[in-house]
Amino acid sequence: MTQERAVRTRRAILEAAAITFDRRGYEAATITEILKEAGVTKGALYFHFPSKEALADAVLAEPAKEFVVPARQIKIQELIDTALVHAYRVRTNPLVRASVRLSLDQRAEGIDRTGPFLRWRETALTLLSESKDRHELLAHIDPAESADIYVGTFAGLQSMSHVLDNYAHLEERISVLQRHLMPAICVPAVLAQLDFTPTLGERLAQQAITEPAEALAT
Amino acid sequence: MTQERAVRTRRAILEAAAITFDRRGYEAATITEILKEAGVTKGALYFHFPSKEALADAVLAEPAKEFVVPARQIKIQELIDTALVHAYRVRTNPLVRASVRLSLDQRAEGIDRTGPFLRWRETALTLLSESKDRHELLAHIDPAESADIYVGTFAGLQSMSHVLDNYAHLEERISVLQRHLMPAICVPAVLAQLDFTPTLGERLAQQAITEPAEALAT
Repeated sequence: MTQERAVRTRRAILEAAAITFDRRGYEAATITEILKEAGVTKGALYFHFPSKEALADAVLAEPAKEFVVPARQIKIQELIDTALVHAYRVRTNPLVRASVRLSLDQRAEGIDRTGPFLRWRETALTLLSESKDRHELLAHIDPAESADIYVGTFAGLQSMSHVLDNYAHLEERISVLQRHLMPAICVPAVLAQLDFTPTLGERLAQQAITEPAEALAT
Repeated sequence: MTQERAVRTRRAILEAAAITFDRRGYEAATITEILKEAGVTKGALYFHFPSKEALADAVLAEPAKEFVVPARQIKIQELIDTALVHAYRVRTNPLVRASVRLSLDQRAEGIDRTGPFLRWRETALTLLSESKDRHELLAHIDPAESADIYVGTFAGLQSMSHVLDNYAHLEERISVLQRHLMPAICVPAVLAQLDFTPTLGERLAQQAITEPAEALAT
């Protein structure tokens, strides 16, 4: 198996697992179904993933391969960018969406679902701490406390969007969320300059896809 | 069956259903298990609830029998009171807790999980609209939009609290949430007077339990 083919096979298995977990729930999903969905042999699957738990861990780790947003003059804008890009990916990328649902699957008892929360909290904490150092945040703000709230509220709007309208308005909701949280976090001069446009995530994600190709063309 | 006994039996079945859904998940739970947990006959169960779906609907409706918070000088404080009382009940009342988990159970496909979201949104919308009429809110605030955010963020901190520490810090988190949302919603004069104490929910819930008894004693 060439390196490139191995990467493709691993990817196909991961997507099949995500789709199967999403459709059946983690507990009910079987390796046999995942094999059928992926169209690979049992040997190929076990070469990459020793167990259903290992598959779930890999699916859960997927959105952490985060799109790194471009640097901004105002650091806290990068947190908003990250949230809006993630919202766009949840709405449009089946693997990211399946991962999010798995992290909220109350029946997935054998696997560690704290990972995505803790990872997002770490990302939020880093950006909030840097913003604080740059005096973008109000003096009394505790970055750890705000990171906790930021991640929990994001997760909630995701769940609600899933239940109410299958994520159709997720980016609008995440945009409105920023407008509800940032006045409590940022100094007024920074607040006035923030960009909360709901389509910001899509624009940034598209740039990331198209830019390398453009770089080649020039 | 006397009326009073019927009410007790119905309650026992409801609690047994809630506990069983919570332990096994809605999909996996069976009527047989619920009967065993409740210690009632099949006839008694079907007298009150024609199906598993009907049981789930009744469990989901439970937290809506909301504790009605006392009237406040500042209307928006009643929304904060309601949130903190609910957080206290989720942490301490198994039936309320089971209901919340059922509303977030992605595998409960036959039942309508939008109910709790829509009901809470209605409650939040009523209180936000009244607060707006009293000029407690900033002029640009759209009560419907803020109600959506209020309910979604509450649900998110609930999920996160469940995954990370089994609700141990839910009331603290809901208190911090208020401090993060209210500056974007209320005029400064109102904001300065709001009470975000995490133990407020417990105090209000205890008052509701002890006051009727005290009223009898006097």
